[in-house]
Amino acid sequence: MAFGATRIARQMLGRAIAYSEYGNPKQVLRCIQYPVQHCSPEELTVRFLASPINPSDINQIEGVYPSRPSMTTDLTPNTPSAVAGNEGVVEVIDVGSSLRDRWEPGQWAVMSTTNLGTWRTHLTTKPENLIRVDQYAFHNVQEAASLTVNPCTAFMLLHSAVKLQPGDWFMQTGANSVVGMNILQLARHFGYNSINIIRARPDAESLKERLRQLGATYVITDEELMQRSEMKKLVPKWTENNPPKLGIDCVSGRTATEMSKYLANSATISTYGGMSRQPLGIPVSLLIFKDLRFHGFWLTKWKDEQPSKFRDLVIQMQEYYRRDVLHSPDVDLVDVDANAEPADFLKPFTDSIGAHGKKVMLFHYDN
Amino acid sequence: MAFGATRIARQMLGRAIAYSEYGNPKQVLRCIQYPVQHCSPEELTVRFLASPINPSDINQIEGVYPSRPSMTTDLTPNTPSAVAGNEGVVEVIDVGSSLRDRWEPGQWAVMSTTNLGTWRTHLTTKPENLIRVDQYAFHNVQEAASLTVNPCTAFMLLHSAVKLQPGDWFMQTGANSVVGMNILQLARHFGYNSINIIRARPDAESLKERLRQLGATYVITDEELMQRSEMKKLVPKWTENNPPKLGIDCVSGRTATEMSKYLANSATISTYGGMSRQPLGIPVSLLIFKDLRFHGFWLTKWKDEQPSKFRDLVIQMQEYYRRDVLHSPDVDLVDVDANAEPADFLKPFTDSIGAHGKKVMLFHYDN
Repeated sequence: MAFGATRIARQMLGRAIAYSEYGNPKQVLRCIQYPVQHCSPEELTVRFLASPINPSDINQIEGVYPSRPSMTTDLTPNTPSAVAGNEGVVEVIDVGSSLRDRWEPGQWAVMSTTNLGTWRTHLTTKPENLIRVDQYAFHNVQEAASLTVNPCTAFMLLHSAVKLQPGDWFMQTGANSVVGMNILQLARHFGYNSINIIRARPDAESLKERLRQLGATYVITDEELMQRSEMKKLVPKWTENNPPKLGIDCVSGRTATEMSKYLANSATISTYGGMSRQPLGIPVSLLIFKDLRFHGFWLTKWKDEQPSKFRDLVIQMQEYYRRDVLHSPDVDLVDVDANAEPADFLKPFTDSIGAHGKKVMLFHYDN
Repeated sequence: MAFGATRIARQMLGRAIAYSEYGNPKQVLRCIQYPVQHCSPEELTVRFLASPINPSDINQIEGVYPSRPSMTTDLTPNTPSAVAGNEGVVEVIDVGSSLRDRWEPGQWAVMSTTNLGTWRTHLTTKPENLIRVDQYAFHNVQEAASLTVNPCTAFMLLHSAVKLQPGDWFMQTGANSVVGMNILQLARHFGYNSINIIRARPDAESLKERLRQLGATYVITDEELMQRSEMKKLVPKWTENNPPKLGIDCVSGRTATEMSKYLANSATISTYGGMSRQPLGIPVSLLIFKDLRFHGFWLTKWKDEQPSKFRDLVIQMQEYYRRDVLHSPDVDLVDVDANAEPADFLKPFTDSIGAHGKKVMLFHYDN
């Protein structure tokens, strides 16, 4: 306890990436400083070890995401603001007096809810906003930091709409997305077979090989998918006439429509993204005569409705990391000096937004 | 019994509208004549009183409908053929000796399965292909003839995807289709409110009034639906912020997409047709953030899977006619002389195909 108490007694200044109006993140984000609060008997004070930048974080700042944090004057007395970010892993640094039988400094935790604002150094909060994790379950800190969004989404997409049996087939678009790669690792664990669609690109063959290593059974490009006469022969051959019962889609547009044609009667297509920025075009005959069912999956909504099941799911994903079922996704680690001047604290965030590839911000503390 | 036996002893010739190849109905349909068979101890011989022409009957003849009758040499020894038509009401004219405790001449019945070929005068068949109906339950013969497709589809569309409560709202496109008008009559019975979309037309106001008389709460044209700023005010006002939980669609295309925007979170859209001949375009955000679910309903598949429930449903619809919940849809009755020469028997069918409005063929017998 002295450990945490000592730190906070120094009247430490936390830093957070916040915004007071919606818009282009490079324009509306700023770094604010705030005194790290002493925690009340029922609270914990934590510091962030790593926080990913997810596409939905950007959409929130732009004001185009349906779930958003409230803007408050808690940290910015003059102008209400919200701290950006929704995911991250923290280390407990101070424990409220009534919580000391259950928590101790050094414990790692992840967020149990969205909109807590994770692009920051310090947070004083109630323990119900956190889920304890075991730092030794993970291969590295970025796995823990990315525990609550992508692997959970991957698991739910594979398991919530259709009950697959080992040997069953599914198809997915955007198979090289982080969720797509988590899906492949989980599918290998459960013995599901998959036909995976990636965008045609110069390095398609090496990407195919990488996805097969993660667990993909077959990988094709969207251009190959469009070769209908060829695909109509290949899919039944690959699946031995056991057509995919589940489609998982994060691309939408023509790719998703085309994928639907290879699914089994009464299959479900679960959509979790629309990278093509095109609507999903569904031929009516697929709905009526093939009985395909289309719905979307949004983890934020599900976890708001099922908070206890979400906690169980996070712990289950942690166990998959521990048992080597899941491995770190391909991410770029970006160093952030927790003691930097505000402009220097802000810069790695704004530099990372819009850059290619998933970024995880790693906070470095002086002590 | 003598009644039926006498008739068939005369070596009667039945007439049927049949086809041996798929194509334009006006070109491939022909009238065939066949001896009306004596029924075996386990069979019934029936004559058709009335048979509707449904759009799916046409699609079957064109070869573009997924469910089709087998082509056999039963009636046409030289060239395999199928008799067209799937719906109709019959009168029993002869009863096999082992069935005489349960059936008698004069009993009315409808088809329990599709693909029996109902555009014909006489059929000898097993009783399991028939569902007895009570001729006194109906206001007229066309109600009985149209019992097994449109009212059953209407009931299932209203009840299978979402459990509405009295006072709840739904929306439907193509509200003036026969199914749409059956839906309105049933909705009034169950106390459901509806917003109904029709195609813009010169006589829209009188059609709106007609649909309100059948049970519609509000009726708008597709052009009115597209006035988004107006509709975004009207729908919450009409529904008192109890947005529709169910969308029923037989139009697809832009109209269905637009309708989806006014539905409640987690609403279901049930598609049973695509009159616009456009695919259903679904914005991904409606799937993910609004959790809308899209599926199709096809009565033929449902009844094949649930034959016993289908029989119950048909009898329930009959009771709705008896209790004045349902009334005859707007149909044109077309007289067919059951004893006409083949060319004259064929003509009313080919004249009716492609003509505006739903047609029910009424068979007239000499005796």
